[in-house]
Amino acid sequence: MPQLKVPATSANLGPGYDTLGLALTLYNNFEIKKRNDQQLKIKIIDKNKNEEIKIANEDNLVVLAYKKYFDFIAEDLIGAEIIEEMHTPLARGLGSSSSAIIGGLAAAALISETLISEEDFIQLAVELEKHPDNVVPALVGGLTINFYCNDIYDYYKIDVDPDLDFILVVPDFELKTEKLRQVLPEKIDYKSAISNLSRVSLLTAAFINQEYQHLKTAMEDQLHQPFRKKSIKGFDQVIEAAYDSGAYGAALSGAGPTILACTTQDSKLIAAEMKKVFSSYSINTAVYTVKACNQSLYQSLKEEIFKDA
Amino acid sequence: MPQLKVPATSANLGPGYDTLGLALTLYNNFEIKKRNDQQLKIKIIDKNKNEEIKIANEDNLVVLAYKKYFDFIAEDLIGAEIIEEMHTPLARGLGSSSSAIIGGLAAAALISETLISEEDFIQLAVELEKHPDNVVPALVGGLTINFYCNDIYDYYKIDVDPDLDFILVVPDFELKTEKLRQVLPEKIDYKSAISNLSRVSLLTAAFINQEYQHLKTAMEDQLHQPFRKKSIKGFDQVIEAAYDSGAYGAALSGAGPTILACTTQDSKLIAAEMKKVFSSYSINTAVYTVKACNQSLYQSLKEEIFKDA
Repeated sequence: MPQLKVPATSANLGPGYDTLGLALTLYNNFEIKKRNDQQLKIKIIDKNKNEEIKIANEDNLVVLAYKKYFDFIAEDLIGAEIIEEMHTPLARGLGSSSSAIIGGLAAAALISETLISEEDFIQLAVELEKHPDNVVPALVGGLTINFYCNDIYDYYKIDVDPDLDFILVVPDFELKTEKLRQVLPEKIDYKSAISNLSRVSLLTAAFINQEYQHLKTAMEDQLHQPFRKKSIKGFDQVIEAAYDSGAYGAALSGAGPTILACTTQDSKLIAAEMKKVFSSYSINTAVYTVKACNQSLYQSLKEEIFKDA
Repeated sequence: MPQLKVPATSANLGPGYDTLGLALTLYNNFEIKKRNDQQLKIKIIDKNKNEEIKIANEDNLVVLAYKKYFDFIAEDLIGAEIIEEMHTPLARGLGSSSSAIIGGLAAAALISETLISEEDFIQLAVELEKHPDNVVPALVGGLTINFYCNDIYDYYKIDVDPDLDFILVVPDFELKTEKLRQVLPEKIDYKSAISNLSRVSLLTAAFINQEYQHLKTAMEDQLHQPFRKKSIKGFDQVIEAAYDSGAYGAALSGAGPTILACTTQDSKLIAAEMKKVFSSYSINTAVYTVKACNQSLYQSLKEEIFKDA
């Protein structure tokens, strides 16, 4: 059985609230072994701390996703031993729960040797995660535009320039997405919506045409960051430090607290300057400098499952 | 003095409310002659009806724009005789007022032989029109993403595929944009905003990558069409007729009542089917099938004014 590599993901990228998601070359690895009974034994190891994370099976997204897949294909559950090595920090806005969901579904596909359509795969993942902007890029790679149409979640994939570095500055405190959704107002004014419409359109053009000089404007947001940043000390100054040291764009990653910046040069300097601002607020940070992951995990599953066909 | 050709424009394209604008190969022509005094004589001829439209100078956007340009360059007004031949139907959502503004500003540039920067030109035009999504594409051509940033209106231009036909079905009643803005609610919910964010992003990708199969989803809107369509009998059925007969996308043009559809084939059939629906509601329509105008009027002005330099 091959090792599964599920990418971390960064949602929103500023203006693309609940719309854009980006797969990153920071992976959670899943080792999978078939059992001869119907038991599921999942071990999760946080590789950043080198310690095991204990989650009861009924709350474990890997288990829930694995079972949901077998339910969907209407076959008897086949037991498995799964070891998840988490390199993605937990609850920091980098899609760790989406990674667990995609890992669990993919493990079930491999163990059952039954691959459902990509469309069905996405629907199952979104049912578990409730929103598409992390699970979709985790499954298909690249920068995805996620949209809901005719009762299904669908996407458009943009392959991202491999020259772009994505700097992830990860504060050492957790923020739960669900709680952060509650800080948003019920309604928004047209002016804010129009600002985001223009920026998400500009961001799309900038990534497709690799014209990164537009990203500073294109990554501005008025729909979620103004509310969420209240939970993150130094947010505005960290963004400013990223720009001052040469980043093309910077934004909250998902619901935070991670801040993402992108550049094609000076990534070490940019990371150091961002980290310095957090330090001045007595916040420790881990820094990852990664690329976009353009590979599709779904495509790899297909090749693996049908390799003997 | 050359003849000025100012394109008609279609704003919004569905999801890009106050953001997207498209220049079309349907022009209002301006003939300009310098006078030896400071008088402005403007004659506007509606070429669709072959009759003169009388507008007092104090309400005439050509005059207001012309004067504003001279104010801006701080030079004494030079008088002119301007004949505007309008091919764009008036108050139908095709940017006739933007065309008058750009025509007036451009006439003043030619007569004064002084060309202000494109950035300044845009700011003057938006001050007169109040929103950027028609004046900007009228000036620079193509499909523009318009955004307001650091106190100025700026844009990103996408050159549009010359194979695309744009069908304009123009009902024979007027709708005034200002009144139509009043039908919009004060605030909107996140769900509607997210729907438009995903669609405007998809639309941007579809136009840049010429992947028109996405336009049906990409041209859906939840921010203005649901409210404005109440003033246009048969709106949903006309859109449906466009799709049923093979259009890639269809949406309200600006604030309407014109409905725009796009296709690379069967434009006659699509136009006829859309027209038929309006007829069934006893609404007469004029139909124009045009292309995107990718030429920049600003660039032409520059070449003309600096040709002897």
